[in-house]
Amino acid sequence: MARPTPLSGFPEWLPDGRLVEQHVLDVLRRTFELHGFAGIETRAVEPLDQLLRKGETSKEVYVLSRLQEEEVDRTAGLGLHFDLTVPFARYVLENAGHLAFPFRRYQIQKVWRGERPQDGRFREFVQADIDVVGAGELPYHYEVELPLVMAAALGALQEIGVPPVRILVNNRKVAEGFYRGLGLDDVEAVLRSIDKLDKIGPEKVAALLVADAGADETSARACLELAAISGSDEGVIDAVRALAADKGVSNELLDEGLAELGALVRAASVRAPGVVVADLKIARGLDYYTGSVYETVLVGHEQLGSICSGGRYDTLASDGATTYPGVGLSIGVSRLVSRLIGAGLVRATRSVPSAVLVAVGSEEARERSDEVAARLRARGIPVEVAPSAAKFGKQIRHADRRGIPFVWFLGEDGTADQVKDIRSGEQVDADPAVWVPSADDLWPRVVPTGSGEDPARRDG
Amino acid sequence: MARPTPLSGFPEWLPDGRLVEQHVLDVLRRTFELHGFAGIETRAVEPLDQLLRKGETSKEVYVLSRLQEEEVDRTAGLGLHFDLTVPFARYVLENAGHLAFPFRRYQIQKVWRGERPQDGRFREFVQADIDVVGAGELPYHYEVELPLVMAAALGALQEIGVPPVRILVNNRKVAEGFYRGLGLDDVEAVLRSIDKLDKIGPEKVAALLVADAGADETSARACLELAAISGSDEGVIDAVRALAADKGVSNELLDEGLAELGALVRAASVRAPGVVVADLKIARGLDYYTGSVYETVLVGHEQLGSICSGGRYDTLASDGATTYPGVGLSIGVSRLVSRLIGAGLVRATRSVPSAVLVAVGSEEARERSDEVAARLRARGIPVEVAPSAAKFGKQIRHADRRGIPFVWFLGEDGTADQVKDIRSGEQVDADPAVWVPSADDLWPRVVPTGSGEDPARRDG
Repeated sequence: MARPTPLSGFPEWLPDGRLVEQHVLDVLRRTFELHGFAGIETRAVEPLDQLLRKGETSKEVYVLSRLQEEEVDRTAGLGLHFDLTVPFARYVLENAGHLAFPFRRYQIQKVWRGERPQDGRFREFVQADIDVVGAGELPYHYEVELPLVMAAALGALQEIGVPPVRILVNNRKVAEGFYRGLGLDDVEAVLRSIDKLDKIGPEKVAALLVADAGADETSARACLELAAISGSDEGVIDAVRALAADKGVSNELLDEGLAELGALVRAASVRAPGVVVADLKIARGLDYYTGSVYETVLVGHEQLGSICSGGRYDTLASDGATTYPGVGLSIGVSRLVSRLIGAGLVRATRSVPSAVLVAVGSEEARERSDEVAARLRARGIPVEVAPSAAKFGKQIRHADRRGIPFVWFLGEDGTADQVKDIRSGEQVDADPAVWVPSADDLWPRVVPTGSGEDPARRDG
Repeated sequence: MARPTPLSGFPEWLPDGRLVEQHVLDVLRRTFELHGFAGIETRAVEPLDQLLRKGETSKEVYVLSRLQEEEVDRTAGLGLHFDLTVPFARYVLENAGHLAFPFRRYQIQKVWRGERPQDGRFREFVQADIDVVGAGELPYHYEVELPLVMAAALGALQEIGVPPVRILVNNRKVAEGFYRGLGLDDVEAVLRSIDKLDKIGPEKVAALLVADAGADETSARACLELAAISGSDEGVIDAVRALAADKGVSNELLDEGLAELGALVRAASVRAPGVVVADLKIARGLDYYTGSVYETVLVGHEQLGSICSGGRYDTLASDGATTYPGVGLSIGVSRLVSRLIGAGLVRATRSVPSAVLVAVGSEEARERSDEVAARLRARGIPVEVAPSAAKFGKQIRHADRRGIPFVWFLGEDGTADQVKDIRSGEQVDADPAVWVPSADDLWPRVVPTGSGEDPARRDG
């Protein structure tokens, strides 16, 4: 077998990169659980008819077939899920009788999309989602809470070197109310045009609004003026009100949306100052959002696109008798981690769990080394035993190559064991019943690259 | 959308079941890391030609196609991995220049097999693998170490109610040497027949040996006598030697295998007494094993089949210049967890992370409740806030329905906050800066079902 080459769009990490990813996942999970979200995991496959209910994504679905099947029936079969929302909606319907609503769940899994890979876009990637779903109704305050949970989760990652984030929020009711107040009733067409602002600029969007959304020059310009409003305090609400008054727009839905958006901005300014910004150009193409919508950028890496998006949807699922409204956000973990590793923002202090390599004096005495390793592990210290009873210099080099900071030498003929810090060269007597490495050395840690916290370099 | 029905062979758990699975995965991960295994994750897909290298499993592969492809090219495409060994071998070859050998890795991921689902067999399931792989060579002592790591991992699960395990070990060299010493040179045919012992019984296996493996009545009977030997101390080695002498069998490979098997049994009797049993009928159908082979049964649930299997393979991978031998075992996590849940052996003390529900006096004062929740979370206590400012009785019932043990009431007009244990009804003054629940109540725990540790029942 020749050396295989990576598959484009299917990211994999070396062990030190996987440590970064695992740490990010652990921090997210802990933050979600501190906020009372229960973890679930759904199967990777869904019936194709479920996956294809939305038109736009249908082309990206990977279809499964069994090798021994005569031919692939593309209508009756199974496909890999392309997000975690469709499976969650199905899970809620399937298990509604066993869940307590409002149901708070997080879900961290891989998803697959058969699209052309490019920077920050993968065909297989990990998402971390939180949603709250109600049975019949879901109060607005969850639309305030959920982006703040994500702000807490992403904020907790700053200590390892993740840049600060900015969560951009808007409210569908504001946009829809304003457009309708201008006489533009094809709201989806307006949203689709506005969604292209960052890509094609205001002039071309104005032309699109006229061509596709039934706008005239004046109303197109008003839409662009609304989209230009942003801010992190309630002044942004006043600005929208002033614009609406100026354009002669008066609409109940607009008022309702502004009240909601104002409540979100106000709460965010207390609980996550500077993180949440109302940005009236955030449109989110998907037509099932009915209230708040969210996008999130890494400050300094805005061109990466949103790393955490979502919104409110009045109908996450429905079984006819009951409708389940929800609000949720999804972190693109692979996109984030790939940037952290690719841009060298974070690193692991070592690539193996072991804090200690127990040296082996002779193969006949390997059992003694195993015994010391077992005693250290019983006290929570990660340990491995040397692969062979080579000369001690070679065993130390083995530890060094793997980034293991300590080598343990067994005493002979009644002398004490000794442990050597191979970075400083310091070697001291040690008892496997009491010795501990420093807290910094116990487990590999994930740290900002610029922090100088590299054990291998401490004495160099 | 009507209520969907589960897909056979694709297990999913309710939140309390997922807590059990997550706990099992956490314990396995921690044990593997304490033993110095680095975690990796590989993509879910591999090129089909890689997946189809082994004949027997080829029929079970799920093939991927993109929905917009005109037709499925079943020879050039991608398939879902059916185990974690094939992807690991590919990963080692792809990244050999970046890995330090012997490379110790664990890998916990889903795998997919398009086979007919039945009890304990799934089409999508989680495996937890450990392997050590060397570049060019790999000393025998790893064949002793790896089953003992699995014994430690599975043993650590006993405190949540997982039954003890018995790891059955054999050595290919013993079997092959014995068969060759009997004049039976089609070793694979003998192994395939012996592998059916539990299913069809000794008489039919004897007939198979004669029909398929070139045995006569006498040598067939000798094979069955070898397969009948088992034991957890070195007496088993003596028994094999006595049988060989009795049958006039003398073979170098047999001697080498017996020395290895003896070393494993001896080490296991010290480090995991009673767990490892040499069982000469363990054959493992797969022809790439070249030394030790392992199977593991849950005591009292033997009919479930092996929950942890593996062995030594001299050629895990090869790039022409270097051959990579390995030894590894794989836990069938879904099979294990499904039995734990299905047989009611274990349970979670509650199904949500939250230890506390903060009550809401009025929607206008929700911010005060949010603030208390934030203060408790900052001290590591999982908390959620009541969904609505309903009457307190209703808020308490909401906590009760979700299994949340404590409800927090904010003080009014300068009086202290209070916290109520809704199981005992006890309500006391509490300060969000210092109050803590008992360690047992802080997070949901996974416990043996018979332990009576059910918070909801403590005062009942």
